Amino acid sequence: VEDGDRDLARDLVSPLHPADIADLLELTPSDRRGEVAAALGDLVGAEVLSELNDYVRDDLLDALEPQQVADFAAELDTDDAVAMIEDMEAADQQAVLDALDPEDRAAIESALSYPEESAGRLMQRDLVAVPEHMTVGQVIDYLRDNRDLTTDFWEIFVVDEAHKPIGTCQLSWILTCPRSIAMADVMKREQTLIPVDMDQEEVALRFQKYALISAAVVDASGRLVGMITVDDIVHIIAEEAGEDILRLSGAGEGDINQPILEAVRTRLSWLVVNLGTAVLAASVVGFFQETISKYVVLAVLMPIVSGMGGNAGTQTMAVAVRALATNQLTSSNTLRQIVREFRIASANGTALGILIGIAVGLIYGNPDLGLVIAIAMLINNLVAGLAGILVPVTLDRFNIDPAVSSAVFVTTLTDVMGFFSFLGLATVWGL
Amino acid sequence: VEDGDRDLARDLVSPLHPADIADLLELTPSDRRGEVAAALGDLVGAEVLSELNDYVRDDLLDALEPQQVADFAAELDTDDAVAMIEDMEAADQQAVLDALDPEDRAAIESALSYPEESAGRLMQRDLVAVPEHMTVGQVIDYLRDNRDLTTDFWEIFVVDEAHKPIGTCQLSWILTCPRSIAMADVMKREQTLIPVDMDQEEVALRFQKYALISAAVVDASGRLVGMITVDDIVHIIAEEAGEDILRLSGAGEGDINQPILEAVRTRLSWLVVNLGTAVLAASVVGFFQETISKYVVLAVLMPIVSGMGGNAGTQTMAVAVRALATNQLTSSNTLRQIVREFRIASANGTALGILIGIAVGLIYGNPDLGLVIAIAMLINNLVAGLAGILVPVTLDRFNIDPAVSSAVFVTTLTDVMGFFSFLGLATVWGL
Repeated sequence: VEDGDRDLARDLVSPLHPADIADLLELTPSDRRGEVAAALGDLVGAEVLSELNDYVRDDLLDALEPQQVADFAAELDTDDAVAMIEDMEAADQQAVLDALDPEDRAAIESALSYPEESAGRLMQRDLVAVPEHMTVGQVIDYLRDNRDLTTDFWEIFVVDEAHKPIGTCQLSWILTCPRSIAMADVMKREQTLIPVDMDQEEVALRFQKYALISAAVVDASGRLVGMITVDDIVHIIAEEAGEDILRLSGAGEGDINQPILEAVRTRLSWLVVNLGTAVLAASVVGFFQETISKYVVLAVLMPIVSGMGGNAGTQTMAVAVRALATNQLTSSNTLRQIVREFRIASANGTALGILIGIAVGLIYGNPDLGLVIAIAMLINNLVAGLAGILVPVTLDRFNIDPAVSSAVFVTTLTDVMGFFSFLGLATVWGL
Repeated sequence: VEDGDRDLARDLVSPLHPADIADLLELTPSDRRGEVAAALGDLVGAEVLSELNDYVRDDLLDALEPQQVADFAAELDTDDAVAMIEDMEAADQQAVLDALDPEDRAAIESALSYPEESAGRLMQRDLVAVPEHMTVGQVIDYLRDNRDLTTDFWEIFVVDEAHKPIGTCQLSWILTCPRSIAMADVMKREQTLIPVDMDQEEVALRFQKYALISAAVVDASGRLVGMITVDDIVHIIAEEAGEDILRLSGAGEGDINQPILEAVRTRLSWLVVNLGTAVLAASVVGFFQETISKYVVLAVLMPIVSGMGGNAGTQTMAVAVRALATNQLTSSNTLRQIVREFRIASANGTALGILIGIAVGLIYGNPDLGLVIAIAMLINNLVAGLAGILVPVTLDRFNIDPAVSSAVFVTTLTDVMGFFSFLGLATVWGL
């Protein structure tokens, strides 16, 4: 479509929502993206950029002058502007900041002073806060008279003299009340305040748990400094939940737009770690070479025991990682969950052991071999079940993201124990 | 805390938010939950029930009379009431419906008539819709005069005579406008309409993409029949993204509250399928027993090749499954992604092959063995990379959830090809 005919392309794209234009750019091959963006000209505005996938946006921003980026940033809410420039290299970022007018620069620099992925970076400063003695009618008049206020808000915050939030008021409550009622009588006093340094994952869980539309952000002294709205949180919930699957598999945070070299680097470093553990597991087999050379069938069967342990461990681990990420697994029920996983592993291990034991006993006409593989299967399932929950829980206790590191420990354990239990038993049994 | 001293327990719990009371019940061991709920009495109200984990709620509802459940359902919005009773057994559900007053029953029955996990089940019927000729002032007066309207709404829908939505208006726009302006001039005409039979996953993606707070639900003829608000969508986004990690690992949809027997059944059925594929992979090893018996070291090294393929395949698969779930991977860029994964796999396979090849060559003083394992490693990485994207994409084309079924195909392929390439090459090489 984009070949040569710029006007046609612009006509086709102009009625689209910025999010759709962003999708279109993402679907364009990376080597032609700059060209397409240039052809679309001002249709690729600040909103489109803020909707773009991080990798794709960084790619396009690299081609722009600092002044152009600054113009885009000035059009956006603080939180979106920060999201746009926070991953730029320090020098480029400084150049953009220098090109901003002082007010926007101050807002963005202040946001950047908060840690990455904290509430301070997510919040916007434009909000509506009123004292509690105002009546509904006064608030409406104030809003009508101050047209330079943001129009993107869903709740009004009621604050005391020290600018500390004391209540929240949905706009629908204001609209359904007579003008004479005081805000103090309309607002809800129970509110969920977000500390400015709270991690975004925790913020997302609060929004989810209390079904929030917006929430007040407060600094260390409890003063209202900003507001977070649910539309920004929705992205984070999706990202955080989706990231775990990538991390657990060792693909880092890489989506399909990640540059190839970066994808190779992330994945390869994980694979090299796994190579180390695979060699460790193989060395266990090495101990039993003599047993194997006497009875080669053992080599045929051993991957079944280790592999099944890996599968069972991955199941438990996925459940545990999810439960940790959603705060369902806490110190108060960990022991109960460990017992639960042990019982599940016992049941599954027994069933699988009997199944494979009978099959192997019959196929190879060797009941002892059947018994050995059955017992090894049960042992390895128990190891898998326990490791599947103990490893993530332990990592979590040490503040290590269980999604990132659990898999390597769990599969190493199930590989090592799979080989060791099966080949060890076979040796002791004198097979 | 709960032992004997009911009053103390009630005093401690009563200031909590319903979502916190729900958390507390979830953390209570399942065999004591009924007792604790009884002790808390009316503190465990409709809102607490609607916040509970599905498994925990079903457990508690089982102990209640239909009339009690009906009383709870009557207190809730239609969507929450439907969520509460939709998983009950048909007879129990009917008993609850019979106990409801006719109006609530009609609303819930109508919601239940839509497919599970569709927009029709998520929407609430209470909304504010006005004709476009009304002015801002008239709308405010209408809202003030009709106090029986819902107060939980964030946008007002503007409809034509046929009750078809023609625009949406944020409450903040109404509050910041003079009374005399017509709704037609305040509302936004571009709106995201949700068909009543749309799948909830698709609804969630729309909310995410267009940063919606609420959206109009329309029937087949385009008439406004309900509204979905973002607070209900937040749960779905988290669930859908979180489910993929569980499905991919073969743990079904089971969270830590799933009854043990159900967990055993779900996981065991998956493990039995995997046992079948493990036996298949082992049978490949069986072909090469003679080669192994001549050179037992092959048995030591073969799990490295198969295992590393499994790891690489899982990485690619996780990225592909996520990209499919978030609509990033479409028919227009599939080919490009396949090429991308092939290039990543070539790079990683070459690096890993060289690494393990040199190590094995040196350790066993056998350059041929090193070369064989290096080539096998490269081949299996390529198989893993291609299978990791082709399997999910193909399943998706056939409308099979790639998260559920991809892993078994991919790991079977990497196991089989790992053993076959390594042992096959070793045989041909005459090791």
